[in-house]
Amino acid sequence: MTIQTAVLIETLTALGAEVRWCSCNIFSTQDHAAAAIARDSAAVFAWKGETLREYWWCTERALDWGPTGGPDLIVDDGGDATLLIHEGVKAEEVYEKTGQLPDPSSTDNAEFQIVLTIIRDGLKADPKKYTRMKERLVGVSEETTTGVKRLYQMQANGTLLFPAINVNDSVTKSKFDNLYGCRHSLPDGLMRATDVMIAGKVAVVCGYGDVGKGCAAALKQAGARVIVTEIDPICALQALMEGLQVLTLEDVVSEADIFVTTTGNKDIIMVNHMRKMKNNAIVCNIGHFDNEIDMLGLENYPGVKRITIKPQTDRWVFPETNTGIIVLAEGRLMNLGCATGHPSFVMSCSFTNQVIAQLELWKEKATGKYEKKVYVLPKHLDEKVAALHLGKLGANLTKLTKDQADYISVPIEGPYKPPHYRY
Amino acid sequence: MTIQTAVLIETLTALGAEVRWCSCNIFSTQDHAAAAIARDSAAVFAWKGETLREYWWCTERALDWGPTGGPDLIVDDGGDATLLIHEGVKAEEVYEKTGQLPDPSSTDNAEFQIVLTIIRDGLKADPKKYTRMKERLVGVSEETTTGVKRLYQMQANGTLLFPAINVNDSVTKSKFDNLYGCRHSLPDGLMRATDVMIAGKVAVVCGYGDVGKGCAAALKQAGARVIVTEIDPICALQALMEGLQVLTLEDVVSEADIFVTTTGNKDIIMVNHMRKMKNNAIVCNIGHFDNEIDMLGLENYPGVKRITIKPQTDRWVFPETNTGIIVLAEGRLMNLGCATGHPSFVMSCSFTNQVIAQLELWKEKATGKYEKKVYVLPKHLDEKVAALHLGKLGANLTKLTKDQADYISVPIEGPYKPPHYRY
Amino acid sequence: MTIQTAVLIETLTALGAEVRWCSCNIFSTQDHAAAAIARDSAAVFAWKGETLREYWWCTERALDWGPTGGPDLIVDDGGDATLLIHEGVKAEEVYEKTGQLPDPSSTDNAEFQIVLTIIRDGLKADPKKYTRMKERLVGVSEETTTGVKRLYQMQANGTLLFPAINVNDSVTKSKFDNLYGCRHSLPDGLMRATDVMIAGKVAVVCGYGDVGKGCAAALKQAGARVIVTEIDPICALQALMEGLQVLTLEDVVSEADIFVTTTGNKDIIMVNHMRKMKNNAIVCNIGHFDNEIDMLGLENYPGVKRITIKPQTDRWVFPETNTGIIVLAEGRLMNLGCATGHPSFVMSCSFTNQVIAQLELWKEKATGKYEKKVYVLPKHLDEKVAALHLGKLGANLTKLTKDQADYISVPIEGPYKPPHYRY
Amino acid sequence: MTIQTAVLIETLTALGAEVRWCSCNIFSTQDHAAAAIARDSAAVFAWKGETLREYWWCTERALDWGPTGGPDLIVDDGGDATLLIHEGVKAEEVYEKTGQLPDPSSTDNAEFQIVLTIIRDGLKADPKKYTRMKERLVGVSEETTTGVKRLYQMQANGTLLFPAINVNDSVTKSKFDNLYGCRHSLPDGLMRATDVMIAGKVAVVCGYGDVGKGCAAALKQAGARVIVTEIDPICALQALMEGLQVLTLEDVVSEADIFVTTTGNKDIIMVNHMRKMKNNAIVCNIGHFDNEIDMLGLENYPGVKRITIKPQTDRWVFPETNTGIIVLAEGRLMNLGCATGHPSFVMSCSFTNQVIAQLELWKEKATGKYEKKVYVLPKHLDEKVAALHLGKLGANLTKLTKDQADYISVPIEGPYKPPHYRY
Repeated sequence: MTIQTAVLIETLTALGAEVRWCSCNIFSTQDHAAAAIARDSAAVFAWKGETLREYWWCTERALDWGPTGGPDLIVDDGGDATLLIHEGVKAEEVYEKTGQLPDPSSTDNAEFQIVLTIIRDGLKADPKKYTRMKERLVGVSEETTTGVKRLYQMQANGTLLFPAINVNDSVTKSKFDNLYGCRHSLPDGLMRATDVMIAGKVAVVCGYGDVGKGCAAALKQAGARVIVTEIDPICALQALMEGLQVLTLEDVVSEADIFVTTTGNKDIIMVNHMRKMKNNAIVCNIGHFDNEIDMLGLENYPGVKRITIKPQTDRWVFPETNTGIIVLAEGRLMNLGCATGHPSFVMSCSFTNQVIAQLELWKEKATGKYEKKVYVLPKHLDEKVAALHLGKLGANLTKLTKDQADYISVPIEGPYKPPHYRY
Repeated sequence: MTIQTAVLIETLTALGAEVRWCSCNIFSTQDHAAAAIARDSAAVFAWKGETLREYWWCTERALDWGPTGGPDLIVDDGGDATLLIHEGVKAEEVYEKTGQLPDPSSTDNAEFQIVLTIIRDGLKADPKKYTRMKERLVGVSEETTTGVKRLYQMQANGTLLFPAINVNDSVTKSKFDNLYGCRHSLPDGLMRATDVMIAGKVAVVCGYGDVGKGCAAALKQAGARVIVTEIDPICALQALMEGLQVLTLEDVVSEADIFVTTTGNKDIIMVNHMRKMKNNAIVCNIGHFDNEIDMLGLENYPGVKRITIKPQTDRWVFPETNTGIIVLAEGRLMNLGCATGHPSFVMSCSFTNQVIAQLELWKEKATGKYEKKVYVLPKHLDEKVAALHLGKLGANLTKLTKDQADYISVPIEGPYKPPHYRY
Repeated sequence: MTIQTAVLIETLTALGAEVRWCSCNIFSTQDHAAAAIARDSAAVFAWKGETLREYWWCTERALDWGPTGGPDLIVDDGGDATLLIHEGVKAEEVYEKTGQLPDPSSTDNAEFQIVLTIIRDGLKADPKKYTRMKERLVGVSEETTTGVKRLYQMQANGTLLFPAINVNDSVTKSKFDNLYGCRHSLPDGLMRATDVMIAGKVAVVCGYGDVGKGCAAALKQAGARVIVTEIDPICALQALMEGLQVLTLEDVVSEADIFVTTTGNKDIIMVNHMRKMKNNAIVCNIGHFDNEIDMLGLENYPGVKRITIKPQTDRWVFPETNTGIIVLAEGRLMNLGCATGHPSFVMSCSFTNQVIAQLELWKEKATGKYEKKVYVLPKHLDEKVAALHLGKLGANLTKLTKDQADYISVPIEGPYKPPHYRY
Repeated sequence: MTIQTAVLIETLTALGAEVRWCSCNIFSTQDHAAAAIARDSAAVFAWKGETLREYWWCTERALDWGPTGGPDLIVDDGGDATLLIHEGVKAEEVYEKTGQLPDPSSTDNAEFQIVLTIIRDGLKADPKKYTRMKERLVGVSEETTTGVKRLYQMQANGTLLFPAINVNDSVTKSKFDNLYGCRHSLPDGLMRATDVMIAGKVAVVCGYGDVGKGCAAALKQAGARVIVTEIDPICALQALMEGLQVLTLEDVVSEADIFVTTTGNKDIIMVNHMRKMKNNAIVCNIGHFDNEIDMLGLENYPGVKRITIKPQTDRWVFPETNTGIIVLAEGRLMNLGCATGHPSFVMSCSFTNQVIAQLELWKEKATGKYEKKVYVLPKHLDEKVAALHLGKLGANLTKLTKDQADYISVPIEGPYKPPHYRY
């Protein structure tokens, strides 16, 4: 719920939508943006520094249009709203069949316990809430790699309850927001949180996908020596071609100054890694969930001390060495928690994709064009997103002649590339 | 026919193949490499500085195993061998039905006239040569963007005569050879041909695909100010995000020092552009065919004078101004014509794809797995190509745990990415 | 008065000094740092957001040790403390001879009026205050290009009242703090103040000295297209060699998005430039005084409106166009006003020079080694500053053999370079 | 004796000089340039691939104007002509006093033996040749760091026989030719000699002066991971600020792919280092003399085998491991030996300094302005050199107003910087 999302909300409202909104991250809300939207445009359930319980309460509130209403469309980012509905529907089905309520103690994932609690607590009052919701829903457009991954898993399992447009994999999203956005907001977050001089430092970037590429580029350009960890040999070879070293975390854990996780996977930096780090090594995550860093392991480490230097910047001191590491944003997205997220220009690319996806879902709601599957936007819309952003930067596009267009077998007006083109 | 292709030939020979070879470019043969292969490994029809007529004679010779033999597999680069066979078969079919020979004067494309002439001249002696060839052929693996485009067109038209593997679109080809290869070989060609200082110059890169990205990066890093021309708004926006200016050729034709075409299209730099350029502006092509630059227009320009400074480096002087431009490699691929092409490491990635594709086609020749269509290599083979090249560069890959692999729903051993992933 | 100066104060205190302190910039004080020092270590006269009158009051307070005391040494940054003493002494001499008090209305420089007022107001109460001060003073060590320039002017005029060590021209200061410090803190200030996406923007850097080089590098690396303005042909040629365009401000004023002054001169961006800029163009100064930008002209522009977006970020709207520009830190140093100044590592280099200079002045106070002139630190001390900072970054220096040292005629332990060496 | 020196010769000739010329490096002559000059402009004693004996014979020939003539001015590069005259004069003085001839066997430096032999062989025929020469000589202008170092040593010893202008330390020489020239010509030499892909490789740059900075930048930009070795803590810290690792050669000798010496010192890479390198590691020198690399130790290593791949590219195979390293240009300047040296634009900066220095020496030959000392060019001439090169690159300089010039106390027309300014 940043100023960029505020503009997205205003855009959707101007297009005729009635909007309810929550944040996708407990730290990322800019309270002034939320206040302005709450005053002018939409119901907002978000503030900077939510607890996890508050976060899911907000999510549940944002979805609640009262007994007769409900969302027609979801703009999702990370997939938590979609998750809540799917889990809600699942619980309602079990409850209907067996009378059994969801049991939060059935999981040891603390966050999922909260999800189950929220569903459980609402279930008796309204045992059909999520079922009604999924029936009404025309679809969701999802913003992030993580959210999209969940959608494809649900599609594969046959459990997806409504059509989904994968906005993340628009070129003008994944190759812009993830790459150029993080190239901007990673150093921004590091500077605001720690004021550390990046030049001369050894930085480890875990993962060399689009996010990792942006982070590594930013750190290298700022004068750090960057080491990449990767599981994928192709991405590893890309890192090497840029002059970056590719090693394992174990190889470098005790000599690096800055650690950044960008993997979208879990258990990347464990407490046993953190114990071996240099004093005041900085550890942060710009991938997705806070489980990229073993926050649980850190919190439960016997004798560990947490010293909050300022909000979202904690020093954790290990008892054996009395040395400590600096963890940003409690392991959550540091660019959102410690800075203001991606800058407006690149978010405009992402959100133009979102708006186009929402328009598309709504326009086709009755045609059956979109089944309960995951779709990407057609390339001509992707190119349109880019084209809309060129003028601001003073670009002059070249026009194909008819002859040239025929020669390479594309329409003069595009789309210009085959679907598999990688940019 | 460079030292890298020599190693490819030796590899294929070591795997059991009998090889006949020609070049894909009239200037790119390294004569010492050709000589070594001719002595030790294979029949070679290639030398540096072929005429077009010689070039196509070589292509025809390379395909000729005598009346009872013929190629089982083709390793193609640019698609000329594939083209010759397809045109040959077409002509043989017409000839069989109508007795009509192909008529070179039916086209005003000088090179295609030669192709038709060669087919015509062979037709009476052996009116089934190409037909026998296509019947025997198990398939082709094609290396380049241009060649692949032809293959997809033939697939779309239903005229493709045998299975084809698109090696170009392996990630470890298109995102390596095209990008990192050109980043290396463009400045190499410029330096060898002209010794020009790149720092401080204004360079125009026409096209910002993988080749253009590599060229623009190389020129920028060497200290040039780089301007990009593009038709595709997405690629244009990528250029802008790297701090490059995006303009049309017309905007900058009279102020730039170096012009590079990378489009894979035709008619990019016309003689009317060249007339307006600064004295001693350098014009070169690293895309594919020499028709990116209007060589025909230049040669036929009234009163133009060509001064060969050294082979592959010509100064063309216009009569009105008595100023001239420097054209490299007669408009053909300047990295092959003026330098030695891509370096071995990146060609090893490309050619490993080729070898794997050839093995795959041969292994599956009787199974019907490959129809008369264009295929890309499966991702696990693409990842394998990368993995084979990591050791040389001292990389340590990270291994997924079972738990992590499950979490992101990939096998521990890969492949790690969905097919649409863009790297 | 930042956290870095706090550590400098603690260091001086630990070495035995009694310290009084003020800021060198009305916006640069970090109040928490000032509070900590005031509590533990020294008398501090500084807070974030001083008025100019408060600023000079603080300077006067910091110099006032009561009737019998006074500073023995000055650590100066910008030369304002040194200026006040020199102006004070001048006024006291005039007053003694003629009984005449300084007349603030004799100047139309608003800030200098304040200086004269402060001196005038103190003069009658204690007409020998500054004279006693200069007699007691062992010397000053000065940090900045601007302050040093003043010192050399006073040396040239024969008006310098005590020895001065030019710390700014230590290599480990001018080539580190100015260059690498600004490379870090310019984007930091831009991001914190405006959240603007730097990639894709056109940025003008006025001046390509060390500060300008750092700024241009940072902006280029972040993906901006950078244009430099310069008066010095050598610096201009350096910019060109890095691929930057060199134009005049007039050439580009209406097409750029970000303007940064780094010149150390005045009247660089005038209100007539600002009127022609694009809507929401960002204008900021990281050189020295706020007169690099014509703030006076802007404030007095008929009908102009100032809208404070947040402290240190103002939008100025021109009445003719109703479009506006964003001015950072009221034209003062934006890295101090909008961010937290240079990061600690590079400030440690600068302040190690300061401490060594202070030690040197004190050690030699009775020997006559330092006359009323401006000195730079000897090279072996400059090299020592660097050597002290290598361990933190994990560097291993190579040792000369005796034979090698003799061969290039340097001592094994250094200094290694002639005085004119440029690094 | 490259095409750039050819233009220098033509310039000097056009200004009225009669010129005799030799090369400063046994491999650097471009024979076509030498031939053109020999035909049109001057007596040339130089060819590509001289032996050391031939090299010194050429030097001696270039200085020989016959019994009644002699050089008035020397344009030197590396100081060998100056050395020969100084050694000649010394020998003539000894001979005059004692009748003793120089004894080549008195030194074990093979090259110096040749120098003494040449002097000895000429001494009996003309025992005053060098004495007459030094009496006639108005002065020398010297191009290189190495040559300048010798001149300052002679000045310090009081043995300098005529005035010298140190052209190397003009900003427009040392910060351009050394830095930007090597940034261009190091990769050029590597590519032409070896075609090695630089991306992904580990490169060690010994020395981080201007030459080392240029080399490290080029290698980093081409995608290598660069490690620097340094003796000077300031230069080491500069390397670290650019994200380069600073280690000793011993730390990395067995893991790097490319080694470049840039130190201007001797005994940098010894045969004991080379033995430990990876197979086909590339070893080259772009500093000055071939003694940066222990060529003598390599040649005399028991059982070593030298395989000449092509001229200036040798593989040396060690008997123990049967692995080998690639040595470029026999340890001499690889950019001259394997490529064509620096490009014309940057050489034009250097040679404009040379021409201005020659004009200055000649103009002042009777005024006594220049004593037997080493001088640098005044800054306004240095700035003039830069100004003369701006137009070609399309730059627009900004002009100071009178008011601004006064404010920073410089003349409107320059010079703009104090002598100690480092750029």
